[in-house]
Amino acid sequence: MKSALSALGQRIAPPPISWLMKTALARPQLISLAAGFTDNATLPTKISRQLLDEILRSPKTGQPALQYGTTAGEPDLRELTATHLQRLDGGHDHAHSPERVLITGGSQQLLYLTLEALCDEGDIVLVEDPTYFVFLSILQSRGVEARGIKLERDGLDLPQLEKVLTRLKNSGELRRVKALYLVTYFQNPTGATTSLAKKSAALKLLKKFERAAGHPLYLIEDAAYRELGFDHGADVPTALTLPGARDRVVYAGTYSKPFATGVRVGFGILPEPLYTAVLHIKGNHDFGTASLLQHLLARALATGAYARQVAKAQKNYARKARVMRQAMAKHFPANVETWEASGGLYFWARLPNGISTGVKSKVFQTALKNDVLYVPGELCYADDPTRRKPDHEMRLSFGGASEANIRRGIARLGAVLKTFIPA
Amino acid sequence: MKSALSALGQRIAPPPISWLMKTALARPQLISLAAGFTDNATLPTKISRQLLDEILRSPKTGQPALQYGTTAGEPDLRELTATHLQRLDGGHDHAHSPERVLITGGSQQLLYLTLEALCDEGDIVLVEDPTYFVFLSILQSRGVEARGIKLERDGLDLPQLEKVLTRLKNSGELRRVKALYLVTYFQNPTGATTSLAKKSAALKLLKKFERAAGHPLYLIEDAAYRELGFDHGADVPTALTLPGARDRVVYAGTYSKPFATGVRVGFGILPEPLYTAVLHIKGNHDFGTASLLQHLLARALATGAYARQVAKAQKNYARKARVMRQAMAKHFPANVETWEASGGLYFWARLPNGISTGVKSKVFQTALKNDVLYVPGELCYADDPTRRKPDHEMRLSFGGASEANIRRGIARLGAVLKTFIPA
Repeated sequence: MKSALSALGQRIAPPPISWLMKTALARPQLISLAAGFTDNATLPTKISRQLLDEILRSPKTGQPALQYGTTAGEPDLRELTATHLQRLDGGHDHAHSPERVLITGGSQQLLYLTLEALCDEGDIVLVEDPTYFVFLSILQSRGVEARGIKLERDGLDLPQLEKVLTRLKNSGELRRVKALYLVTYFQNPTGATTSLAKKSAALKLLKKFERAAGHPLYLIEDAAYRELGFDHGADVPTALTLPGARDRVVYAGTYSKPFATGVRVGFGILPEPLYTAVLHIKGNHDFGTASLLQHLLARALATGAYARQVAKAQKNYARKARVMRQAMAKHFPANVETWEASGGLYFWARLPNGISTGVKSKVFQTALKNDVLYVPGELCYADDPTRRKPDHEMRLSFGGASEANIRRGIARLGAVLKTFIPA
Repeated sequence: MKSALSALGQRIAPPPISWLMKTALARPQLISLAAGFTDNATLPTKISRQLLDEILRSPKTGQPALQYGTTAGEPDLRELTATHLQRLDGGHDHAHSPERVLITGGSQQLLYLTLEALCDEGDIVLVEDPTYFVFLSILQSRGVEARGIKLERDGLDLPQLEKVLTRLKNSGELRRVKALYLVTYFQNPTGATTSLAKKSAALKLLKKFERAAGHPLYLIEDAAYRELGFDHGADVPTALTLPGARDRVVYAGTYSKPFATGVRVGFGILPEPLYTAVLHIKGNHDFGTASLLQHLLARALATGAYARQVAKAQKNYARKARVMRQAMAKHFPANVETWEASGGLYFWARLPNGISTGVKSKVFQTALKNDVLYVPGELCYADDPTRRKPDHEMRLSFGGASEANIRRGIARLGAVLKTFIPA
């Protein structure tokens, strides 16, 4: 008898990183620089306790927090979110009206819903090379193809973007292209931040190719790490501030990473007709994100507790990043190229060509034997048949590990690298 | 320029009930017996406040509640869920091991994930006639066809189920059938509870037709209202207790409705290979339900606070149901057939044939003019081309309205019905 599973059910695969996680759990002495966890010690237990106490103290605020809300989200939180984004964008008066805000179960859910609304099997989405691997998992599971565009330290390699679009146009495949996906702030996995100039150029290029595509080409801006910048105030404006953005930019943001990942609340800003489609699909998923979490975030935002917590988290990650930077300078061979981010949770390291970091590589296996774990770079590259996957890079996270473990982990990893890399 | 939306994005429609909700919001004097809201006054604000305070008081319990967990759910909650189900099923030692439990964002998310893993466009799912309308929305949006099987007061019309399966077999369509979906306890919308004998017979019938289908035919048991029975202890065992259930029954349960709908935590028990497929799809949706909610529920279950809250809710709904029953007896014309449930949130009323209750009907419009709202029965019937949709029924909810409003609403509705129904 055959399986009854759908095409999606048959395609779906374990997340590439689940094996790494299991490995980490099975070896408690292992230092994981792999997981994208946030820092435990700075989690807002005290703030959350107080805010929840305030919310649940009176029936007037407590009952709505324990009752169904609407699918789009709590009106207060949608309003606060629009204001919050405007402030992040330096007061820019763009299209962030609360009516275009959708509250979701983390930004992850927004990405999933957007792809459901946009892509059929066989469609194509352009992504950064490398990019966020769970996004790649969504594409793969839904039978959507990816084309990788080389990522530089300030964003996409624009000439390559144009070349790929031209090639797709010439091969008649452009009508299958639906969107370009960018992780624009302290990118996962590289830590790179896309400049506003590059966002603008990418949006213009998409626009230019729309006629040949026969339909809108969307720019999906994933800003999950935006509020984890170390240098508060040095924020690049979002693509939403650009001319022409109103109908073409999907913005995915989250409160989870800067506040608490256990309070999973994200949000999206979407143009029509995507907004309505995504809203109704979410209605079928869960008819709205849990009210209790939304009320907690709304109160945190309204009282300033959110801003204080974010400032605290930023300072903490800045310190941990500094520790990792210093350790890498001290322990890594000089010919390992490192991308040191000014925010987020990740650094990116590139070994000399030909020295593989993959799961089956000697580097990875030796690191594991020496009780230190990283994410092999190849897991962050799309299955794009038009180019070979680089396999000599690694993602290193300073989010979850303690400062002592960051030092120890990088020292162990440096020692391993030195045995494989000629000085 | 064409739309870039996917087939799903183009098919997705507003939920049928959203128009009703908007109508209710726009007329504050209107009494809504339409919404499936739970009772505000009995929401566990005090209990939740206390439990959250306990959880967040110490870093040891507070930090994990604010951190990422695993996609399958908190180990404690999965364990407690397995035990909870075993107790509900009278200690039955079935396949409810914690390893088969998946924690989800309400049972709604589990239904969505299960259909993603199981159904392609063009597939068929058998449903009750009438059934839960959001389930029908999922099917419609995903291009999955539904076939309705008449629902009697104790479950499906079994001869009709066999007839439909036989017809599908003869027409060569059986290979497109993937599952039978039953809302087995105090069904939405009719309040009917399926007997164990009927669950057993349905499961056997599915088994019988599997050879012709060429793949497993699953029984999806949606038990969302199970714990809202008025007569505690009179619970029918789940289909999971039946022989042959282990590989064929998907069970969807929830803590949200009995505890608090703003704390959206549901769960599923699924056989392989469905469990793994659904788990990985959930990984792409949200990599796990918010930890804070899971820790709250786990503590509520472990301390007995959950059981106390459920007992309180049951008593409250029993009282509100009694109020509605008495009001219907007093105000409804004698030839309106009512199905009075012994649990859940809904009663079902059937007008004499030929008297439509639909949104455009005189009955509905007059009721609206008299400030009382119900859910037209026709919204709860699948688009099944093989039979005509009944349009002379209505769902009446006693969940959200106060006792005074239930009395007033039913009196208004009774007066409307009397003008249309000859005595």
